Amino acid sequence: MTVTTEALATTDLEFARQLGQQLRVDSIRCSTAAGSGHPTSSMSAADLIAVLIARYLQYDWSKPKDPNNDHLIFSKGHASPLYYAMLKAVGAITDAELMTFRKFGSRLEGHPTPAIPWTDVATGSLGQGLPISVGVALAGKNLDKLPYHVWTLCGDSELAEGSIWEAFDKAGHYNLANLTAILDINRLGQRGETELGWSTDAYRRRVESFGCFPVVIDGHDVTAIDRAMGQALSSTGKPTVIIAKTVKGKGFSEIENKDGWHGKALPPDMAERAIKELGGIRHLKVKTAKPETTPAPKRPEAAPAVTLPVYKKEDKVATRKAYGDALVALGAMPDVVAMDGEVSNSTHADEFAKAFPDRFFEMWIAEQQLVATAVGMSVRGYKPFASTFAAFFSRAYDFVRMAGISEANIRLVGSHAGVEIGQDGPSQMALEDLASMRAIIGSTVLYPSDPNQTAKLTKVMAETNGIVYMRTTRGAYPTLYGPNETFKVGGSKVVRQSPKDRVTLIGAGVTLHNCLAAADQLAAKKIAARVIDLYSVKPVDVKTLRDAVKATKRLVIVEDHYPEGGIGAAVMEALAADGLPKIAHLGVKGLPTSGKPEELMNAAGISAKQIVAAATKLLAAK
Amino acid sequence: MTVTTEALATTDLEFARQLGQQLRVDSIRCSTAAGSGHPTSSMSAADLIAVLIARYLQYDWSKPKDPNNDHLIFSKGHASPLYYAMLKAVGAITDAELMTFRKFGSRLEGHPTPAIPWTDVATGSLGQGLPISVGVALAGKNLDKLPYHVWTLCGDSELAEGSIWEAFDKAGHYNLANLTAILDINRLGQRGETELGWSTDAYRRRVESFGCFPVVIDGHDVTAIDRAMGQALSSTGKPTVIIAKTVKGKGFSEIENKDGWHGKALPPDMAERAIKELGGIRHLKVKTAKPETTPAPKRPEAAPAVTLPVYKKEDKVATRKAYGDALVALGAMPDVVAMDGEVSNSTHADEFAKAFPDRFFEMWIAEQQLVATAVGMSVRGYKPFASTFAAFFSRAYDFVRMAGISEANIRLVGSHAGVEIGQDGPSQMALEDLASMRAIIGSTVLYPSDPNQTAKLTKVMAETNGIVYMRTTRGAYPTLYGPNETFKVGGSKVVRQSPKDRVTLIGAGVTLHNCLAAADQLAAKKIAARVIDLYSVKPVDVKTLRDAVKATKRLVIVEDHYPEGGIGAAVMEALAADGLPKIAHLGVKGLPTSGKPEELMNAAGISAKQIVAAATKLLAAK
Repeated sequence: MTVTTEALATTDLEFARQLGQQLRVDSIRCSTAAGSGHPTSSMSAADLIAVLIARYLQYDWSKPKDPNNDHLIFSKGHASPLYYAMLKAVGAITDAELMTFRKFGSRLEGHPTPAIPWTDVATGSLGQGLPISVGVALAGKNLDKLPYHVWTLCGDSELAEGSIWEAFDKAGHYNLANLTAILDINRLGQRGETELGWSTDAYRRRVESFGCFPVVIDGHDVTAIDRAMGQALSSTGKPTVIIAKTVKGKGFSEIENKDGWHGKALPPDMAERAIKELGGIRHLKVKTAKPETTPAPKRPEAAPAVTLPVYKKEDKVATRKAYGDALVALGAMPDVVAMDGEVSNSTHADEFAKAFPDRFFEMWIAEQQLVATAVGMSVRGYKPFASTFAAFFSRAYDFVRMAGISEANIRLVGSHAGVEIGQDGPSQMALEDLASMRAIIGSTVLYPSDPNQTAKLTKVMAETNGIVYMRTTRGAYPTLYGPNETFKVGGSKVVRQSPKDRVTLIGAGVTLHNCLAAADQLAAKKIAARVIDLYSVKPVDVKTLRDAVKATKRLVIVEDHYPEGGIGAAVMEALAADGLPKIAHLGVKGLPTSGKPEELMNAAGISAKQIVAAATKLLAAK
Repeated sequence: MTVTTEALATTDLEFARQLGQQLRVDSIRCSTAAGSGHPTSSMSAADLIAVLIARYLQYDWSKPKDPNNDHLIFSKGHASPLYYAMLKAVGAITDAELMTFRKFGSRLEGHPTPAIPWTDVATGSLGQGLPISVGVALAGKNLDKLPYHVWTLCGDSELAEGSIWEAFDKAGHYNLANLTAILDINRLGQRGETELGWSTDAYRRRVESFGCFPVVIDGHDVTAIDRAMGQALSSTGKPTVIIAKTVKGKGFSEIENKDGWHGKALPPDMAERAIKELGGIRHLKVKTAKPETTPAPKRPEAAPAVTLPVYKKEDKVATRKAYGDALVALGAMPDVVAMDGEVSNSTHADEFAKAFPDRFFEMWIAEQQLVATAVGMSVRGYKPFASTFAAFFSRAYDFVRMAGISEANIRLVGSHAGVEIGQDGPSQMALEDLASMRAIIGSTVLYPSDPNQTAKLTKVMAETNGIVYMRTTRGAYPTLYGPNETFKVGGSKVVRQSPKDRVTLIGAGVTLHNCLAAADQLAAKKIAARVIDLYSVKPVDVKTLRDAVKATKRLVIVEDHYPEGGIGAAVMEALAADGLPKIAHLGVKGLPTSGKPEELMNAAGISAKQIVAAATKLLAAK
């Protein structure tokens, strides 16, 4: 075997074959140096990636933000050695940096993250890269209208994830011919054979039935790979799925196709033998083709004027409705896009769909794909607003978690939260969303109580980075704020206050209304109560809380959420360093049922009457 | 149209046709009385259910716990009017009770829950009933070895959920011929046409490619329904999927197949016209066939002796390994079963798989199906232990949420939690699991730090009802407890204590080890620190915490978890009513990267050194 390839053009298939060997060698080298990682899962896909970067990918590595670049997403994020070996081959990183893989301080983490500029999204939780790629491809086809192609490398184990089939389904439905999924069917999962092994025909039937165009190949035959990728670009009008039969650990005979080598770095002596068998260390450089410069659709430089809807004090408007109205107003910003999980007539995203049909994407009842589409569009710089019932974002919690790691900028709006929804019963009630969303890295959690506030906060969402979650309410309650009030991330409003305040009632959303009713009842008993609208649940307004503690010494916190991890926890975590006064914390106790909202709030222990009782008890205590 | 059917045998197809009309009428009546609900989604499936209960279902309604009963799960839980109308037709409930639908205090909730004894699991979050049915059918085939059949009614909108395809895949893989899914393809979703409309052939190809046996029929032709159900029972060796083309709102011409009638009760005047068109109110009674009495496999009455593994003080054993060992020991209990998401060699569930292959179920990388299988087996009274990486239970969060509403008894064991996992990076780190699992209704959350404790707590899990979650750790740390220590739900251990304690350090899992190291360092500075092992994160041991506050006045809480909603929140929520002293709360701040566990714990601010600094600062504060 020869290492000299200078005579070959880098687009020559023999060059690609040699490059595949280099990618294997480098995958082994960096993982052996790290003492951990997934070399064998990298070796199975090396020829696929070699042909792709040598002959098909259009990417300017010096300009990772060029809108004309293709996208390459490693859905099998554990093949990160291959990914980083590729970055070396294209000259994006040096060999020396490659060898920092998995070390503290290196940007080459165990699974790819956007710590490096060529990575669109963090992967490593399987079954997510493909759904996100669908979002990027949708943006390419329907929003950017640019000819870039989205290439996604999937493992075979992750094809067991339902989210993959949500992705194939939507890719097929939207005829995303600009998307190619490359399935690395190496037969072996972490602990043995995968469910379908090398049954490429079974995969072919499934992929085809989901509306995609399958091509079955030998994933180590560079000619076949080349032909399949060519086919992928010669549009069939459908997304292409290259089903590549491969061998795990390919190229090192001691471990090829052997069980027990998943996620294991080779010990140095084995690595040495492997590198020898693979033809030694190479430093081939690939000149990836740069994309043709197609001007991206111009987006206005200055923020366009947004005229938010305004509601009168006497109006009773549900916050979910105000969200829909505000989203239509935000449509003036050309980068605002929306998607929904087939409940847009409940979340009121349907108003945006009617006003801006080209920027609305129906994801049907597939919440994982719903969030993934938002993440994919955020990769392309859009401001996505994804909505469904708040309870059903729990279906996509792992996607939200990974979006946090990707440092994606997405907005999630969950309607129908809490027992307040009434008759539909507990399956439709989000009662753990504040806890779960607060725990997402870099998240913002908002919970308005009033339509003017909701409209303002919807605009704030568009201006806020990270994972921004807003909880809206099903029912209509009185309008509390005038149209000129301002609201911000980390803000709160003291909606009732006097120098005689003896207790502070803290609520948000529907419980703010209950707190106000309770304050009225307390006032009738000559007890002055301060009322705080804690509409920004994360981050919270520490100063206002601190002032309230100082002034009233007693807090009653009320939330339409289970008692764990919600508004109560948010307040206490924020004030922990100060020490805390006695707190009455009213959350939903017990499993709710069906009934009228008032009946259910009463049964849950969060009604005005119960707030009054809790405040009275606190005041009576020594 | 005649209402008199006395001349007909209840197994006659004409009776079934009449029964279908009755189910429609009753669906309308109860939802109109409630003023909400889903009559049209009930009407489309009425003939399917009529034929099923009149001629195929084997169920003793007076003995809902009879192990020989068939199972009938409404995956489309919003068709609850039809479900309750069916319960009236079989005599399980009265017409008067039917009319309490959706009212506060009624057990006929908006979506079915196990508040009524014939309901196996709560549904209403779409795409869950079928995966759970797969669990029940697996139990029937492989554990109970009883001839009961599992019938599942699915809507067409929910077929967009990836979880449905995880379910078809596993049903096909395990050749669950005892499972029949009935797909009610009524074309219309909540806000318009479904993705595939009436393309029954597209569904057929998908179902077939996933290893199931499809039968396409007209869902209003009782003869065709009858033939399809007969086919389902004449074993093909595969699960049967009846793809029934139906009409939403069938039977009332004003709304048949019309958009805009999803989830809407008919106003009284329309209801009156509908009932008239459907032939008036009937009170037909079905005599469902009772199952043949096949004795269920005997399970021992007395709890069998379990000999837990024991670890020596000098041993360093990872808690995930101790979990695997303990699970094997628990295998002595014949109702203990286990399942894993293709990572059993990491979670150590593989040891149970080797010891008890007949009671271990590989779910591959399909975490929704993993949890659903556990729920399904809990329906049949087994004690399921489901394991994967802790981070990946977030993929199944909605299933865990619904399992809480189902009051299912399942055990979830998540390994590789926190930044402690090291090099793999943030995608594999559970850092929000304590928050999200604590917020589940009726959950228990355990987090051991030591192998003897883990073994004991694994047994406690088997003895605890509800959703029981245990978090295990990747690395091996010193054994802290002797084999005779006892641990309980709601317990804690004071692992270091003296009368001179000036500060209390609270940790669990890996941070308990950091707290102990910190206490040593503080002792060297002549500062006595109490150390609490808060291994029961929910419920927490309030008394021990209260005593510590009283004794030391200062708390340092340390957790390998984001600061929101985890151990810190658990402690503060528990003590809120008392008021709280100054607390230093150390959680993982910022987005972690790859590195060695010690490097990452240091970067996150939860190392011994940082605990010492926090305690010292607290002591210095006025």
